[in-house]
Amino acid sequence: MDNHIRPVELEKAYRLLNHGPTVLVSSSHEGTHNVMAAAWACALDFSPPKVTLVIDKMTKTRGLVEKSGYFALQVPNLDQLQMTFDVGTQSKVFTPDKLDKANVDLFRIDGHDSPLVAGCSAWLICKVIPEPHNQQTYDLFIGEVVGAWADTRVFKDGHWEFEKADPKWRSLHYVAGGHFYTIGEPAVVETGDE
Amino acid sequence: MDNHIRPVELEKAYRLLNHGPTVLVSSSHEGTHNVMAAAWACALDFSPPKVTLVIDKMTKTRGLVEKSGYFALQVPNLDQLQMTFDVGTQSKVFTPDKLDKANVDLFRIDGHDSPLVAGCSAWLICKVIPEPHNQQTYDLFIGEVVGAWADTRVFKDGHWEFEKADPKWRSLHYVAGGHFYTIGEPAVVETGDE
Repeated sequence: MDNHIRPVELEKAYRLLNHGPTVLVSSSHEGTHNVMAAAWACALDFSPPKVTLVIDKMTKTRGLVEKSGYFALQVPNLDQLQMTFDVGTQSKVFTPDKLDKANVDLFRIDGHDSPLVAGCSAWLICKVIPEPHNQQTYDLFIGEVVGAWADTRVFKDGHWEFEKADPKWRSLHYVAGGHFYTIGEPAVVETGDE
Repeated sequence: MDNHIRPVELEKAYRLLNHGPTVLVSSSHEGTHNVMAAAWACALDFSPPKVTLVIDKMTKTRGLVEKSGYFALQVPNLDQLQMTFDVGTQSKVFTPDKLDKANVDLFRIDGHDSPLVAGCSAWLICKVIPEPHNQQTYDLFIGEVVGAWADTRVFKDGHWEFEKADPKWRSLHYVAGGHFYTIGEPAVVETGDE
């Protein structure tokens, strides 16, 4: 494992998604892996941490998540712009070697089966809370976060450090047609608490 | 109505939220209005456009949304940083004059009852699709977007123009403890389509 990767307290895992980044969704079942990009992932609860994720029925990922009961969300960065776009626009249904073509490098963390994408800024492994009505009607999945990690070069002591880190670590926020925005200049309110 | 506000095609309404901004949630019932901030709002579908929104049971907004069947999401900007923080940290339950204290200026758009917050970059009026199990178990609401508008000084022809607009129009992405990030520098992938 990359020695900059450290666990994130589960109570602070929501902070990895709170600023609304586009994420990569990885999944695996019986030796088949996939990774797709998703802009429609969101925190749902603090403790235990939960997330929502929209997974279209047409994707390869959908079946892998339904069969394995797990998915991982990871926060890609500017250094991974092309890869993020490629895994988000190509489908493994039509391009079986999609992951090789997009230069996706997968790794695992001890104790967890989910494949994770190397080079990201943060990772959340999620166990599906089965909600068949949501899944069928809205393509909406709910997952409980069972493990979270971040790269200490951009997320440390429970906080993103985009303003201190190299700009290549900035998260990606997809709009449409190949256009992303990166975050972020800090904007801080005087709370009186500090 | 501010003459820079223009309707957004419903098929493109998801683009107002796709980059993951913190939003303001406004609601109204029988003459009581409220506005709160929420980082946990997300697009759910393209057409008809739908969104998800987490509304805690402790909030005043929760009852107003359940009773009226409507909420509005709006995208605040850097010019509204303090107000966004204030409506997100004060509760109308304990501070009945919260909206006055936070200098929230409400307006309406013809044909819609939902109060909207003036000065934002975009607005989406949403009709609740009742899902009692999600609402009770997860505080998760699903809404169908029935109207969408944006300020043409920052969103035009279906696209955000953060790179061209005055920085005061940049959207806010909340992390924790009064810390937000603003978006955004553009990052564009060569798609071969243009």
